[in-house]
Amino acid sequence: MLEELKNQVYEANLKLVEYGLVVLTWGNVSAIDREKGLFVIKPSGVPYNTMKASDMVVMDLNGNKVEGDLNPSSDTPTHLELYRKFDSIGGIVHTHSSWACSWAQAGRDIPAYGTTHADFANGKIPCARGLTEKEVNGEYELNTGKVIVEEFSKRGITPDECPAVLIHRHGPFAWGKDPFKAVENALILEEVAKMATRTEQVASYADNADIGIEQYLLNKHYQRKHGKNAYYGQK
Amino acid sequence: MLEELKNQVYEANLKLVEYGLVVLTWGNVSAIDREKGLFVIKPSGVPYNTMKASDMVVMDLNGNKVEGDLNPSSDTPTHLELYRKFDSIGGIVHTHSSWACSWAQAGRDIPAYGTTHADFANGKIPCARGLTEKEVNGEYELNTGKVIVEEFSKRGITPDECPAVLIHRHGPFAWGKDPFKAVENALILEEVAKMATRTEQVASYADNADIGIEQYLLNKHYQRKHGKNAYYGQK
Amino acid sequence: MLEELKNQVYEANLKLVEYGLVVLTWGNVSAIDREKGLFVIKPSGVPYNTMKASDMVVMDLNGNKVEGDLNPSSDTPTHLELYRKFDSIGGIVHTHSSWACSWAQAGRDIPAYGTTHADFANGKIPCARGLTEKEVNGEYELNTGKVIVEEFSKRGITPDECPAVLIHRHGPFAWGKDPFKAVENALILEEVAKMATRTEQVASYADNADIGIEQYLLNKHYQRKHGKNAYYGQK
Amino acid sequence: MLEELKNQVYEANLKLVEYGLVVLTWGNVSAIDREKGLFVIKPSGVPYNTMKASDMVVMDLNGNKVEGDLNPSSDTPTHLELYRKFDSIGGIVHTHSSWACSWAQAGRDIPAYGTTHADFANGKIPCARGLTEKEVNGEYELNTGKVIVEEFSKRGITPDECPAVLIHRHGPFAWGKDPFKAVENALILEEVAKMATRTEQVASYADNADIGIEQYLLNKHYQRKHGKNAYYGQK
Repeated sequence: MLEELKNQVYEANLKLVEYGLVVLTWGNVSAIDREKGLFVIKPSGVPYNTMKASDMVVMDLNGNKVEGDLNPSSDTPTHLELYRKFDSIGGIVHTHSSWACSWAQAGRDIPAYGTTHADFANGKIPCARGLTEKEVNGEYELNTGKVIVEEFSKRGITPDECPAVLIHRHGPFAWGKDPFKAVENALILEEVAKMATRTEQVASYADNADIGIEQYLLNKHYQRKHGKNAYYGQK
Repeated sequence: MLEELKNQVYEANLKLVEYGLVVLTWGNVSAIDREKGLFVIKPSGVPYNTMKASDMVVMDLNGNKVEGDLNPSSDTPTHLELYRKFDSIGGIVHTHSSWACSWAQAGRDIPAYGTTHADFANGKIPCARGLTEKEVNGEYELNTGKVIVEEFSKRGITPDECPAVLIHRHGPFAWGKDPFKAVENALILEEVAKMATRTEQVASYADNADIGIEQYLLNKHYQRKHGKNAYYGQK
Repeated sequence: MLEELKNQVYEANLKLVEYGLVVLTWGNVSAIDREKGLFVIKPSGVPYNTMKASDMVVMDLNGNKVEGDLNPSSDTPTHLELYRKFDSIGGIVHTHSSWACSWAQAGRDIPAYGTTHADFANGKIPCARGLTEKEVNGEYELNTGKVIVEEFSKRGITPDECPAVLIHRHGPFAWGKDPFKAVENALILEEVAKMATRTEQVASYADNADIGIEQYLLNKHYQRKHGKNAYYGQK
Repeated sequence: MLEELKNQVYEANLKLVEYGLVVLTWGNVSAIDREKGLFVIKPSGVPYNTMKASDMVVMDLNGNKVEGDLNPSSDTPTHLELYRKFDSIGGIVHTHSSWACSWAQAGRDIPAYGTTHADFANGKIPCARGLTEKEVNGEYELNTGKVIVEEFSKRGITPDECPAVLIHRHGPFAWGKDPFKAVENALILEEVAKMATRTEQVASYADNADIGIEQYLLNKHYQRKHGKNAYYGQK
């Protein structure tokens, strides 16, 4: 079942390798069929170069495995929670890409420092609050999803205007309308995290460099790419 | 029309990928036919690996599309303004290369720290002033070009002696006598920005490192490569 | 003799190149046959791209060469000591990978900053004490192994819960149940060292970033991957 | 003439590309035939991927071109001076590799921080004094060579025990018994410069990290690889 979606998820997982976002088995992509209420996800701990499209695992939105010989990614309950609460998204990515993880480990939001960021998200990339001991020792992966949803709700931002989040002490999740767009967003997040670090570094050596994009410039770039009257790209 | 120039612009755009200056669709190259008063530019948001030479868009110097099925790069008005005011240049490149963007985001000129820089430009690489809210909300991309021209005029430097600029909070533009030389200059700028950051880093760990190339050494290297009696390379 | 093990050691050495953990001849992998009490190791100073499986050297646990035309790695006595004292390990790797070496040269343990680390080791990665002048001028490579064993003993940690160590002023050793797992651990160590540096960098630019993974989150991740009830990966 | 040496110099120049030590045409390799008193060097400003072995230029030790259609590297007088005064060396490399250049631009010697360095050089890598205005405006490239020789003489070190130098505000020169060994030394220098920067960075985030290899450990590693009783590698 869902052979086409399995192919897409398989191909999108391989993009993680092509883009240098993963080593070993450190990342997973999923995608959902909203009509059927089923999503497809990478199996846990399987190497990208031996994995087949038919190894992809099909899950329902109650967390039951519907099809597949292998265990789904251990992060499956996080994906599940995001599909349940962020109903506009079609694909999700988790990686341990180095720059995004470093911000997550430092527990910092990534500030909007320039137009590369503004083309991507309508403000800073949030680092969600850390999970409590109880949340970690309970349904850990599900709670990770819940904390993401809570963070977006608390800050009043939508998953459309910010297609990524940092998990405290852990790493990034990114999403999009389909698995390929989700992978693209994971790549952009990594570039933005790298550039933010270097911006702070370059500024640190000057006596009085001020950093932080002006709100009107952020609006301009975000809107010209994502707004109603967007004019970036082709129709 | 301009099939040969389209081929050159197409090939020069692919060089951005080869040199690691772009991810996704984050860069564009253009080139001008000064006799005809027309320039050729990459279409907006089209991936490099599926793009064809015939997808290149032909524009006139009033900003009208003369030929092409696709929308030109959203940065087209910036290219246009540079071609109008910098009449010695034949090709232009814009990228979001990471090190140059980091200096742009920090709002800093890149100081001349060594001979790699002096072989490239006759002094620091300017970071142009930020656009005002009015300039951003008006003809943003055109105003970006105007601010570059203003910055060079204000500082009394020519586009020949400094073949690149940083756009505040945004990223680099580079140019040259043709699109390939422009791409080469974009690559050199990225190397120079990386090396400048690392020079400041290495100096920061020492008690009293002094940095900044001596004016006579800068002159020597700039002149031996670009001066009347240049002796670098072949005739 | 031990042709299959020689093949494995040969292939594992090539993985060092594939993973970018070595330049020139700066790394070596070995593996042991516990039943026979013999181990196989890379010859000293031989380039990876001309080396053959049949060049691998067979050693016994008294440090005698049992088979092979070439000299074994100059680090052989260190491998030997680790095989003698860490009886659960089947393969060992030494490299001069850049990030791990930088922590070793700085003489610092790598703190556990996030889940990437916690998936790998049950606490910080120790930097062993420096060797004394007498230890260096005596049986240097053997003493290097002894200092590793001493450090683990002193800290009360086992080679299973921490599959890597930093040699003071030198670089990393990593190990695993077989040579491929040892190479994988050398790669993870390098990623963890890189991420730890960047985490400290990102934190250094903020006024009050706190870093260091919470003990309960470290336990959770270490146990979900390595504990009795581990549920990461496939059975 | 010297066809075999031309082939070697050609191949060694291509190694610069393979090792990532150059972009564009930013590096050159030469090698000398001591019996004939002639050396072969890369032509100036010629791209590596179109260059042929027959393009290599033959020079005598008075600085006269003996054979070749193209201009020799503009750095030829520096090579010449080193061949004249450092009579044990057979090949020379100059690059603008990023990490080594950054130390050169910061005007700092590279301290010996660990065994990777000690396997390479018997102490710090010197950054030669800057050239005076008169030296720059006179026979600049020749004076660059003279300043290297002066620096080694002043410090009492030989080109054998330290196979590289940093030119102030410029970049590295490295040498060896033949052009391939010279390229290898240029690669090691770049790795050592990168690792030294990262060592200082890692140490900078700790309260009281002490760095700098102990003299007895430096001696041990230098001697086990380069001393009379060296036991690294094969006979």
